[in-house]
Amino acid sequence: MGTYVLVHGAWHTGELLEDVAAPIRAAGHEVHCPTIAGNRPGDSKRTGLAEAIASITDYLAEKDLNDVVLMGHSYGGMVITGVADREMARLRRLVYWNAFVPNDGEALNDMVPPHYVTLFDQIAGQSDDNSVMLPFPIWREAFINDADADLAQSAYERLNPHPYATFTDAISLKANPAEMPVAKSYINCTEDTALPHSATWHPRLSEKLGLFRLVQTPGSHELSFTDPALLAEKIMLAGRD
Amino acid sequence: MGTYVLVHGAWHTGELLEDVAAPIRAAGHEVHCPTIAGNRPGDSKRTGLAEAIASITDYLAEKDLNDVVLMGHSYGGMVITGVADREMARLRRLVYWNAFVPNDGEALNDMVPPHYVTLFDQIAGQSDDNSVMLPFPIWREAFINDADADLAQSAYERLNPHPYATFTDAISLKANPAEMPVAKSYINCTEDTALPHSATWHPRLSEKLGLFRLVQTPGSHELSFTDPALLAEKIMLAGRD
Amino acid sequence: MGTYVLVHGAWHTGELLEDVAAPIRAAGHEVHCPTIAGNRPGDSKRTGLAEAIASITDYLAEKDLNDVVLMGHSYGGMVITGVADREMARLRRLVYWNAFVPNDGEALNDMVPPHYVTLFDQIAGQSDDNSVMLPFPIWREAFINDADADLAQSAYERLNPHPYATFTDAISLKANPAEMPVAKSYINCTEDTALPHSATWHPRLSEKLGLFRLVQTPGSHELSFTDPALLAEKIMLAGRD
Repeated sequence: MGTYVLVHGAWHTGELLEDVAAPIRAAGHEVHCPTIAGNRPGDSKRTGLAEAIASITDYLAEKDLNDVVLMGHSYGGMVITGVADREMARLRRLVYWNAFVPNDGEALNDMVPPHYVTLFDQIAGQSDDNSVMLPFPIWREAFINDADADLAQSAYERLNPHPYATFTDAISLKANPAEMPVAKSYINCTEDTALPHSATWHPRLSEKLGLFRLVQTPGSHELSFTDPALLAEKIMLAGRD
Repeated sequence: MGTYVLVHGAWHTGELLEDVAAPIRAAGHEVHCPTIAGNRPGDSKRTGLAEAIASITDYLAEKDLNDVVLMGHSYGGMVITGVADREMARLRRLVYWNAFVPNDGEALNDMVPPHYVTLFDQIAGQSDDNSVMLPFPIWREAFINDADADLAQSAYERLNPHPYATFTDAISLKANPAEMPVAKSYINCTEDTALPHSATWHPRLSEKLGLFRLVQTPGSHELSFTDPALLAEKIMLAGRD
Repeated sequence: MGTYVLVHGAWHTGELLEDVAAPIRAAGHEVHCPTIAGNRPGDSKRTGLAEAIASITDYLAEKDLNDVVLMGHSYGGMVITGVADREMARLRRLVYWNAFVPNDGEALNDMVPPHYVTLFDQIAGQSDDNSVMLPFPIWREAFINDADADLAQSAYERLNPHPYATFTDAISLKANPAEMPVAKSYINCTEDTALPHSATWHPRLSEKLGLFRLVQTPGSHELSFTDPALLAEKIMLAGRD
């Protein structure tokens, strides 16, 4: 069976993917849910993108993981793209789940609508450590629209302030994702409005992968909270050969 | 439990939403299905948009309804937007179901393709009371594509000629929907081709709401006939806090 | 009950639609799955589009089929459009399943992205009979993305080289499909990435039909292999009056 490494999105931790990991493990796979530098308890909120990427390449090296299906969610797409650039030999397939796909020189903020950049700038500017949180009303309506009010609230309370430099740092890549010699999949949740559907994840960002396998599922940007078993099933469809 | 007011679309009446109301009532909510002025038996087909809106604000006042989840279908989106402009204090949330979302000064006809405007102009011009009906072949293929022939025919026979002025009158609003201080949801039926998918309901019109909650479901523009229980379920997901 | 004629896509044969035909027959319909000239064992791979179309009009005439629901898949959309142009009187409805919809003077290659044309040109140029095959990695990821590896491989082995002239020949029509006096439906598989979703089947090509009935289903471009029973169900929803 395979080895899956699931890389979380902004404001999240690896622990929040454990309910997704469980059914994948039950199907016989090895699953890791590391937390990216900058989101671990005690991490500096001034962590930048290069350091975030290095924390996952270090994880793969420390555990000596090979033939890895490496999944990234949302901001995690920046991280797994960077990991593929540095550690291609350890990878079997990249899986993007409603994730950013950067070309060389792009920052996450280059791929989000201007009103989000303005909002993030403002929130980070008001923090004392250049971190951002997502206001609850936006998160509830646009990110976890398929949850009831109680789940939306309890999930929100498990998020942590995100190091804003990882959104503004441009990524440095030797090759763009479309040219990377590795299999690629994109999971698209059809009710994900974290990016507006007029300028959304798929196909706007997914097609930057070149040849890729599309897997779609009903669900919001936070399907890992609202239906982790469904997401696990889709990850296995995206991750198989 | 909550109070739902369901506002029908063009050619329809409130009675045609009773099969949708029933499962919402069964879940413990209070549900009202008023008929808009211009579509009630005996109403003048020269009714305009302001009068149509007033008939629903009057309904809310007469019944003294508060904390209302106000849903509008199709043309009903024009009406609920006008109601929100006049009677915000009575509302808890606006729910648009494949509905028009007007900004100040817009008419419904500003949001439909030119070939529909041409067709409507022609049909209204041939009527003796400035009313429009939708030709059956268009309704059967583009509006109720998920019905069998018998349901398409029997449902069509329950429609009534629509007062065309409500399509051509510009709405007058103190603020555009994106600025209205009320929660908003948009229900999108993914097989709704009443507007062509190249210039369709969501995200083209839904994003005029600013921050909103997206709920999607399989189904045509006339899901209230073809699967009222499914629509009821989606209305409750859209209407909850 | 009705008469269905199912016309396969490029690289396929009628035999590969038999698993789709079976449930339609079980529902009481007559179903034919002819193989288009150029794809039959022993056919010249220099077969052109006019000859391909003629092989299906000949089939309808030989069997004297009338009131036909004529379905075309992918390249089969070129063929059924040509058949409708020549043999309208035998048809009850056209059903396009993720199929090309040509106007007069268009070739299939006019509707695919430039990188596919470049690839096809290259492959046909390297053949000794102007035929094209689809490289397995592209077919596996972009055409049959919902299959497991074994099904993808075994299905691929049943394909045959396709006569490339049928992609490059312009079709000759007396009227464009939107003007053809016959009912039309379009079945869209929502995970079909055989054409990239930034320039895809529906609504880009489907709306060339003018008034048509949309039926959607989860699935890839090769749903006939991955879930023939589901496809059969959708064909019957598309084909009914």
